[in-house]
Order: sequence, then structure tokens, then C-alpha cells
Amino acid sequence: MTYTTNSVDSLKGPKPAESLAQERASAAFDPRLMNVFLEGLVAKSEQVLDLFQQMERDVVLQPTFQEYDETKPDARARVAARINRMARYAELEDYHHFMRRLNIVTAFDPSLGVRISVNLGLFLRCIKGNGSAAQFNFWNDKRQNGLIKQMYGCFGMTELGHGSNVAGVETTATFDLETDEFVINTPHIGATKWWIGGAAHSATHCVVYARLIVKGKDYGVKTFVVPLRDTNHELNPGVSIGDIGAKMGRDGIDNGWIQFSKVRIPRFFMLQKWCKVSKEGEVTLPPLEQISYISLLHGRVFMAIDSYRIIARFITVALRYAVARRQFKPSIKRPNEENVESQLINYPLHQRRLLPYLALAYLMAVGSNRLEIEHDTLLDDMDDALDKNDKEAINKCLVQTKSVFNDSGSLKSSCTWLAADCLHEARQACGGHGYSGYAGFGKIISDWSVQMTWEGDNNVLAMSCGRTLIKNVEDVLIKNKKVVGTMAFLNVGAQALGETALLTSAEDAANPEKVLTALEVLIIRISSYCLDLLKQNGGDWDAISYQRVLLSKLRTHQYMLETFLVDFKKADASLKPFLTNIVKLYILHSILEAFSSEFIGYGVINGPLKKAITNELIPDYCAKVRSQVITYTDAFQMPDRIINSALGNYDGNVYENFFNVVKQQNPPQKELKAPYNDALQAMLKRQSLEERDRFEKNEEARSILSK
Amino acid sequence: MTYTTNSVDSLKGPKPAESLAQERASAAFDPRLMNVFLEGLVAKSEQVLDLFQQMERDVVLQPTFQEYDETKPDARARVAARINRMARYAELEDYHHFMRRLNIVTAFDPSLGVRISVNLGLFLRCIKGNGSAAQFNFWNDKRQNGLIKQMYGCFGMTELGHGSNVAGVETTATFDLETDEFVINTPHIGATKWWIGGAAHSATHCVVYARLIVKGKDYGVKTFVVPLRDTNHELNPGVSIGDIGAKMGRDGIDNGWIQFSKVRIPRFFMLQKWCKVSKEGEVTLPPLEQISYISLLHGRVFMAIDSYRIIARFITVALRYAVARRQFKPSIKRPNEENVESQLINYPLHQRRLLPYLALAYLMAVGSNRLEIEHDTLLDDMDDALDKNDKEAINKCLVQTKSVFNDSGSLKSSCTWLAADCLHEARQACGGHGYSGYAGFGKIISDWSVQMTWEGDNNVLAMSCGRTLIKNVEDVLIKNKKVVGTMAFLNVGAQALGETALLTSAEDAANPEKVLTALEVLIIRISSYCLDLLKQNGGDWDAISYQRVLLSKLRTHQYMLETFLVDFKKADASLKPFLTNIVKLYILHSILEAFSSEFIGYGVINGPLKKAITNELIPDYCAKVRSQVITYTDAFQMPDRIINSALGNYDGNVYENFFNVVKQQNPPQKELKAPYNDALQAMLKRQSLEERDRFEKNEEARSILSK
Repeated sequence: MTYTTNSVDSLKGPKPAESLAQERASAAFDPRLMNVFLEGLVAKSEQVLDLFQQMERDVVLQPTFQEYDETKPDARARVAARINRMARYAELEDYHHFMRRLNIVTAFDPSLGVRISVNLGLFLRCIKGNGSAAQFNFWNDKRQNGLIKQMYGCFGMTELGHGSNVAGVETTATFDLETDEFVINTPHIGATKWWIGGAAHSATHCVVYARLIVKGKDYGVKTFVVPLRDTNHELNPGVSIGDIGAKMGRDGIDNGWIQFSKVRIPRFFMLQKWCKVSKEGEVTLPPLEQISYISLLHGRVFMAIDSYRIIARFITVALRYAVARRQFKPSIKRPNEENVESQLINYPLHQRRLLPYLALAYLMAVGSNRLEIEHDTLLDDMDDALDKNDKEAINKCLVQTKSVFNDSGSLKSSCTWLAADCLHEARQACGGHGYSGYAGFGKIISDWSVQMTWEGDNNVLAMSCGRTLIKNVEDVLIKNKKVVGTMAFLNVGAQALGETALLTSAEDAANPEKVLTALEVLIIRISSYCLDLLKQNGGDWDAISYQRVLLSKLRTHQYMLETFLVDFKKADASLKPFLTNIVKLYILHSILEAFSSEFIGYGVINGPLKKAITNELIPDYCAKVRSQVITYTDAFQMPDRIINSALGNYDGNVYENFFNVVKQQNPPQKELKAPYNDALQAMLKRQSLEERDRFEKNEEARSILSK
Repeated sequence: MTYTTNSVDSLKGPKPAESLAQERASAAFDPRLMNVFLEGLVAKSEQVLDLFQQMERDVVLQPTFQEYDETKPDARARVAARINRMARYAELEDYHHFMRRLNIVTAFDPSLGVRISVNLGLFLRCIKGNGSAAQFNFWNDKRQNGLIKQMYGCFGMTELGHGSNVAGVETTATFDLETDEFVINTPHIGATKWWIGGAAHSATHCVVYARLIVKGKDYGVKTFVVPLRDTNHELNPGVSIGDIGAKMGRDGIDNGWIQFSKVRIPRFFMLQKWCKVSKEGEVTLPPLEQISYISLLHGRVFMAIDSYRIIARFITVALRYAVARRQFKPSIKRPNEENVESQLINYPLHQRRLLPYLALAYLMAVGSNRLEIEHDTLLDDMDDALDKNDKEAINKCLVQTKSVFNDSGSLKSSCTWLAADCLHEARQACGGHGYSGYAGFGKIISDWSVQMTWEGDNNVLAMSCGRTLIKNVEDVLIKNKKVVGTMAFLNVGAQALGETALLTSAEDAANPEKVLTALEVLIIRISSYCLDLLKQNGGDWDAISYQRVLLSKLRTHQYMLETFLVDFKKADASLKPFLTNIVKLYILHSILEAFSSEFIGYGVINGPLKKAITNELIPDYCAKVRSQVITYTDAFQMPDRIINSALGNYDGNVYENFFNVVKQQNPPQKELKAPYNDALQAMLKRQSLEERDRFEKNEEARSILSK
């Protein structure tokens, strides 16, 4: 029976939007209020929504589906236009407000986010962190770099031969006493600066990490401001630059390589807050070697926040799709669902694949909030101490710096890994349609991958944090010292050792406070075991790298769970039952099950409890979270334009939305035949093989030639 | 001290090629001989190398670095040219030889592989599997589809609203008694054929999966050949087609959507080997509902083989790079390595990240070999039985079909997942440089992702295989029936139950035969537990989907390990010690550790043994495999042109190779300024905010306006 609604149909089609509407009709908490919990403060939540609104409307900055069809040159031109647009906002608002804007923008345009972060984050933070006040003021204010004006900075740390081992970079900065200059030089191909974001086309300046050589002595890696291009944007003499070309993703960034051939810069272009070279070649060394990497902290903190926003964005897509999409009939018919295919979200497996990431997003929200505050506090304290030239306060800040190094290193690595896992699972959970460019997964997965290895390779960072944990446990257990700061939980020390099971029942396993303690105990037990291994192997830390990475992951969960439990107390009462389900699913899945063989191996839980967690508790809590699944994702308060996925619209009208995007981006009238159609036709209509072989191999030829 | 070799250097640069040469100098087995083990037969190994040679030299087909810089239109034009080229080979060789060529080509050009596979694999295999001999002969021979000539087929199975649930597709094929035709119709937007490879521009014909409606009765989904375009490549009336546009990867494939609006085809365009409609509208139904999906088997078998070749290709890249690249000094100085940075491969963590995938490639080689033979045998047997119209033999083949469905479903899903894991780890193990497009990871990761969800979504396939396992265990345990075929290992039945530990020492854990038995026992125990769960939940199979997927994964390992142990016996004696290390690393890492919480939870091993596996055995066997790491990868015998990675050349001269590719693809002279340079400059040189604001907000304006 043919009938007409908005089109002529012969049978009734699917009505996915009705499913979404149904879910919202039974919302049991206020998503707007929940957003305040996620963002930490009413004011911040308001700020984020204002930014969403401004960005979704700004015709230059708003994400579009065209971005999924762009070539690399298109992407670069678009991102350049967006940097220009962002610069106008930078002129009107304070640094912190602009940083929040940058953070929001990064969630939908990672290339744009990084292009600006390299300039204002890495380049300028490096000058701020390593340069004198005069140097910072000169470039930030007088030369207006802080407004993205006059000059554009890039960050010359990594080389073709050295990435993770920054202390090993081989570019040289040799002091020339006679001219009071440094000579910057790339000694061989391996020392070519490589991957430098913004170098290929944009940057006018670079902070170069180079070995300071004074009177033949190598003082290790220091930082230097080196102009790359003049005001006409011509390359300076001695500076060779090229585009490093195709990447997995982030097409909008013009990463480049740079070679310096005896390029001279004035002595006062060396950043000299901590390290100084006098006119006479006297060298003052910094109090802490790591201090020159302090500008990297900002990026790591950012990446933890990024991880939250990216999971929030794409778990929203996958869960809306899971509510909208129906496939197969359930193995047991549910009441009122006679003869209807089941919504994906009602399959226990589908719940188990996605809902733990929903829970994780909640934990990452509060965890990355705390990390941001930790980092801001450090910078403020540092500024304060330096302003007052208060030595004691400066030393305290250096201790604080180490702490933020560890926390951010651990969270950066764990959260970016978890977000990558989430993106892959969410993409697969959208089935074939998840592979469409317009679903958004393809671009973000390619763009995201770099987070695993840049600004501190995840494994290298995690090993470093794991080492700190083990050293701290050694302090507590063997040296009888107290740990201060965010790792103070290690101070329970020997009490944690042994084989006593911390969790013995299903009630224990679903108790967040008990699981937090159990997790802390596990960290101490593994660390202590690592100390034994170290003794056995003669102190070879490399041999326990696997365990160090594991410890860093566990530590991230400890940090997030601890924070959640603090924030939970302050949450609005109406939200608490729903936050409880979230945190319980999180501890059961992402902690107890994910690390179950360690929990069992170190005696923290036993085998039967693990079996109950896997087979009973996780499905139970999945079902509880499922009941409010759309409200939980609505709490992220991301509008359609920011999410920018053909599968993830608020209304859930997925088939019409998807088809419309496809037709808008690929008008079928325009390509009735492909540009390569002639080639296809020539193939299909080719002559016979005999003819193309000039009939040289047929019977006639054979009889002639074999005579 | 400045000196000159091939360039002027100021210091000595890295010499990564020396590291590769050193490894080869201590090769302890013949990689060419090992290749015979991997490919299964001398003749096959020869054939594969001949194909590598032909493909690496063929100027149309040889992979190039340009492919990593292509736009979508470029990619499509290139792939069209390559299809044309491949068609010339198709004319000269038999089907099996061409299929091997296609398999090899797919390993370096997945889009090309699929474009041809859709036509010859899906379209033509569907006609072969579901059509009468006359139908197959007509389209294959008379219309030359088998030579990729005259016509080009696509595979119209999935719809916008239905993918996994093929039995639910909604396109209708209504029999019109009066005209002896079928009327093909898309009843609503949800039934739009979607994702159809080759439809957007290329295909002339489509096999359409549609509901057979005769005299008002719905007989379920059957297959129909529907012409889409005429010989001038114009769309036939009633056929609407468009490009579905941007995808995560596989740009070379013109996936499209198709809507049919009452399109008429002759009755004899319905494929009628199994299912028939007579002129009078009498319907004969097929003996097995799944039979219409038999054409999908080919693709699944192919994907298991693909998984092997892709892991082989990219683990070679990552391991060559790991030998060439040095970073950091080791925590304990090794003899003769004073003051030299350590090769990545010498770090135990790096070994642990990569070597298990090397081992996995060996297991997948033999496993996918066996699956290929199983599938070929089935098709031969089926042809034979049908030729002779031998009812008994046909029934036997139908049983065989079910078996290949299960084995290929299990291997397709597990192997494509494992390959995806490998690609991500290998890419990260190449650090920042792994993110370069020219490393090859970016393109393959995007291309590969689709394998997880197409031609049987991995989770759906795995659930189905898990269900079969549980049903078989039920047969053995409860119904006292014997399992026949490849799952006969389940027949030990009740003997496997209980809590008896199968592996109790390190020797046991490193014993492949014992681990195989332990794995089989674990499968039976989990299946038996699932039967309990089913009883408790009233037979709700959906509630045990998680366990079903788990079982399917375990089953894949059982299949591969069992096969390896058989093949090992036939291996050349000189290879056996090295194959032993490979299989031991595999069982320790990919079986015992990967599924450790299940092995512990079901009492197959205990906690302390697990701890020993993780902390002692795996590092030990990593070290053993590491000693021949380059020889193991050379055994894949893939030439540079096929591998096509700037990081993975045979010579290991990674920095010069990489830099050369970058400069070749992005000549720095060509883009001294970017195309978007004016926009950048306009931003950097913009007027002051006051001026752009027309001095409306300054003191002067204030004093005027506030009067």
C-alpha cells in the first residue's frame, strides 16, 4: 500500500526519533544540573555553554560536514582562516577565558587547537617558563605574540633522530665570545628538527632546543629563540625548511622539518630565567634539569581534558545511535515488543561495550578538572614566588613541579589511551555506518592517534610515573620516609603488603570507597614486588618497564576515583543515585575487571569474586545505567553542530539525517558518471585478447610460423 | 670538525643500516626456507614470490609513496587504472592463480583488492552459489564477467536500516504473474541499498537481496540480478544511485546507495539454484536458509589471510625500525655499548609490545592456510555433488558449509581484531615517525577498520560461533551426541569439567601440546558454565553474548595452535628450534596471559603461575625471539616496494630513506610560501584593534559620546 508523508513510501519505514523521545520522556534527573557536576562549578558550566553557543554560530569556526570531504590544502586554508578568527577573540578576553575557548575548539577541530597551542602553549609558555620576565614581556606584549599578531611561534624540540630522549637532541648552539652570539647548527641529518608544527609555512620564530656549547664544553640542552622568517615571510639565510608531508591525520597542521646551517642569534635570544651565559662565557645552570620541559606540562594537562571531551562527544554519538538503531529480534521476546526488532542498546553485549566508556567520561571529567586546577595553582605559585624572588617558595614550586609532572604524565598517557579505545569501540558499535566519514569517527581516530606519542610518548611517560611510584614505595617501606603531595596514599606502606583479600563479596566489589583502598593496596603490592625484581636483576629498571606502565595506569584510576568520591559529596542530592550507578559501573569494569588478573595475582580479590563481577555485577550495573542512558549523554550538553556527526543528532532521526548529509555532500546529479568513467568503459569494452595480441597466437599464425 | 661523506656534516650522524646488517650477519636459519613453512608448500611459496616480483615491477600496480598523498578522486582514478591492469592478468591465468594474485594485491592496495573482490568474489560467487549452472555460465562466460569485461557487478545486500540482520532487509521483489517479471522496489528510505561497493560509478549490474513476494506471500530474502546501467553506462529507468561520500578509508572504492522504484526484471534473473519460482508462481524453497550467504564465505576466508599478510607487512616495518632506532641509554650499561644509545628492540618493554605479534603472524599464517584449504575443498565438493546431482553428497556439503561458516566466522572476527591491535601497537612503537603518512600505518589503519564490521560484523559473527560451541558442548554433555568436524575436540566433554588445574608449572605453561589441551578444557568449562547461565535466565542467549564472543576468540586460538602443531611436525629440522620459540611466546602471551583471568577463574591455572608467566616466562621468550628478530621478519619475504613504508626498508637506512621520501613528495622549493600565505600575513599584520574598531571605543569617542 503506497502512501505519502514527506515522501511516497510503499511500506512504513523506521521511526528512530521516536525512540530518543521516549528515553527523554523518562529522564529521571536534570542533565543541565548534571553538567555542573561534570564541569565542577556553575560558572564553568555556564562558560562552557556560552562557548558552545558562540562556536556553533560563528560561521568561520562552526564545524561542518564539508570538513570530512576536505583535501589537505583545503584543510590548511580553513584552519588558517580559523586561527585568524580565533585571534580576534584573543584580543577581547583574558588568557584563562581564551584557554577555555581553545579547549572547547580542540574538541571539534583538533588541528586548529594544536596550531594555536603550539604558538601560545608551547612556544610562548616555553618563553614564559624558561625566559626572563623581560624576554617574556618583549615577545608576548611588545611583539604581540600573545595576541597571535606580528609573529607566529613554533616549538623546535624533536629531531629526526631524537624524540623521547630530549636530553639527547643534537642541534648545537655554540657561543661565539667575539660576536656575543650563539651559532645554531644542525650537525647532521639525524639532528634535523622534525615534526615541528607550524614550521612548514607559518612560523616566524622557533624556540630551538639545542646543546649549549661554551668554550668547547657541552652544557646539555637549553632553549633559544631563533627567527625563521623575516617580516616578508622569506626564509632567513641559513634556515632550510620543508613540509614533512602526509600524516595519519591533523591535515590542518603544517608540520615541517628545519635545518640550521650556522645561523647566528644574539646572546640575549637564549632563554635565561634559569640558565644564563654571560658576555664572558660564564654559564649559570638551572636548579632542576627538567625545568626546561615545564612548557610541556600545559599540553599534557590539556590532553587529559581533551580525552574527557572527546569521549563525551563520541560516546554521545554511539549511544544515541544505539537507542535509535534496531537490529534483530531479541532472543526472548520482551513485553510490548512483539515482532519488533530490538534497539541495539537493549542488548547486554552492546551495553557492556559502550556504557563503561560513558562512566569513564564522568570520571575523566572530574579527574581532568582536578589536574587543571593543580597545574594552574603551580603556575600561579611559581609566578608569585619569582615575583617576590622568594627562594624557599621557588624550591617548594620545584617540588610541586615534579608532582604535576607525574600526575599529568600519568593522566595524559592513560586518558589518551582510554579515549583511543573508546573511539574504536564506539565506531565499531555504530556498525557499518560508523565507517562513514560523516559519522566523524574516521577523522577523530586519525587525529587522535598522535596523542599517544607526542609531547611525551605514552609508554615513556607511564614508565616515568611508574618509576616514581616504586621509588616512593621504596621510601615508605625501606627508607621510612613519608610521601608528600598527591601520592600520600602510599604512606600506609607495609600494612598493604601480604596476601590479605581486600574485597571478598559482591557488596565490597560495588563499594567505591573499598575499591579505592583495594586499588591503593594493589599499587603498593606491585611496587613492592617490583623492588624485589629490581634486587634480583641488579637494579635494571628497563627489565620492569612493563610493570611500571601498569602501575601508571592504576595510578590514573586511583586519581580519578579519589577525586570523584570527593566531588560526589558536594553533588546535588537529586543526582547522587545516578552518579552512584556510574561510579559503580566504573569500578567494576574499568578497575576490577580490567585489571582482574593483577587483583587476583596479588591476592586483593579471589577467582570466584572475579567471576561474579564479570558474569553478574557488570551486567547488572550496565542495566542500571542503561535506563538513563540518554539523560547521561545529554548531560554533556554538546549541541549538534559541535558533535558534527550524521549519526549523533539530538533528535535521533538518524536515517533521514544521514541520507541528507550524504546527498548534500555528494549531489547525485553532479556525478552521474565518474571523472574516470572513460577508463572504466575502455576496460569493459576492450577488444578480445586475440585482437589485442594482433592475432599472432591463433591457429593461422601458428600454421604460418611453425612451417 | 666538519667533514664530508655524501653530505657535509659537522658531527657524525647515526648509522642505522649497520644495525640491520649486524642482525643479518648472525642469522641462524634460512628465511627463504622459513617462508615455505609460512606459506605451507614450496609451490605456493614460489608462486607468492613470483607474484611479489611481478607486482613490484608492474608500473601500474606497484605501490608508490604518492598513494599516501592522494585525494579521493586521484585514488579512484588510480584504482580504476589498476582494475583495468588486473583484468589483463585475469585473461591469462586460471581462477586460483588470479585469486592468489588478488590476495597479494590486497595486502598493499586494500581498495583495489576489494573493488575486484566485490565483482568477482561477491557478485559472481553469489551467482555461482545461488544461480543455476546456466545462469553462472551466461554471466561468467558469455557476458565475460569473469574476465572483468562487458559488465561489472556489485553486491546489493546491506541497506540503510539493515546490515547484520540480512534476513530483515526490506527491498521487495514482487512476482508479476501477468508479465512473468519481478518488480524490484525500495519501499522506504530505510530500505535504500547502502554501502554498495562499486555502485556509485562503476557497476553495471547488482545482485539484489530482496524479499520474494509471490501472490502476497513473503518468502523471505532471495537474490536477483538487476541491471543498473545500460551499455552506455546510463542509469536505467527507476534506478537512483548516489555516492555515499567520505569514509574512514578505502577512498579507492566508490561505495554508493541505490534506490529501486518499481524496476522490472525477467523472472529468470532471479538466482535459482536452490530457490525457484515457476511461471505459475509456484515457489520452491532452498534446503538451508543460510545458503544464500555462501558467497560471503569467500570474503571471510580472504580476511583471515589478509590479517596474516597485514601483520607480516607492518610488524616487519616496526621491527626493522626497532632495530635501527636508538633512544636513551639502557638503565644498566651493556658490554660494548658504552655511551651509546640503546636500540629500541633491546628494551624488554619494546620486545613485549611487538614480538608477540610477530609470533601471532606465524600462527595466523598456518591457521589461514588451513581455512583456505577447508573452503576450497567445500567448493570443490559442492560442485562435484551438484554436477552428479548426488543428494547424499549435497547434504554432506551442507553440513560442511555450516562448519566453514563457523570456522571462517570465528577466524575472520578474531584475526581482523588482532591485526587491528597489531597495527595500533606497531604504529605507536614507531613513535612520532609512525604518525607520518609515509610510514604507511595511517592509511592501513583507516583502511583496515572496515574489516571489523563488514561482511559479517565481528561481534555478530563471534556470537554466532560462540553459540555453536555452546550448543555442541550441550550435545556432548547433555544429549550424549558426538561432535563431528573441526570441533571434535569438544568430545572429551565431562572429563574437562571441574576445577582441576591443567597447567601447574612453568614447564607446563611453555608446553604447546599441554596448552592446547588446557585451552580446549577452558572452552568446555566456559561453555558448560554458559549452559548453567542459560538455565538460570530462561534461555536468554542475548544475556550471554559477552561469553559467546569470548568463546569464539578462544576457539580461533585453538584452531591456529592445533594447526601449527600439525604443520610443525613437517617443518624442516633446521627451523624447528626457532619455530619452537615462536610458538612458546605465542601460547604464553596471546593465550595464557591474554585470557589469564579466565584461565584462573575456571581453575585451569593458578595465580602464582600466572605471575610467573607475566613476570618471567614472557620476558624470557621475548629475549629468545629477539635474537633472530630480523631473520623472522625476512622470512615473510616482502620486498620494499610491497611494504611501501619509509620506515621499513630492507637496508634499515631509516633516516635517509625517510628524509628522501619526504623531500620527493614535498619538494621544499615548490612551496616556499603556502597557498594560504596571504591569509596568514593579513592576520599577523592586521591593524590595531582600536583602528579596526574605528576608534569608537577610545577616550576621545568616550568623551564625545558620554556628553
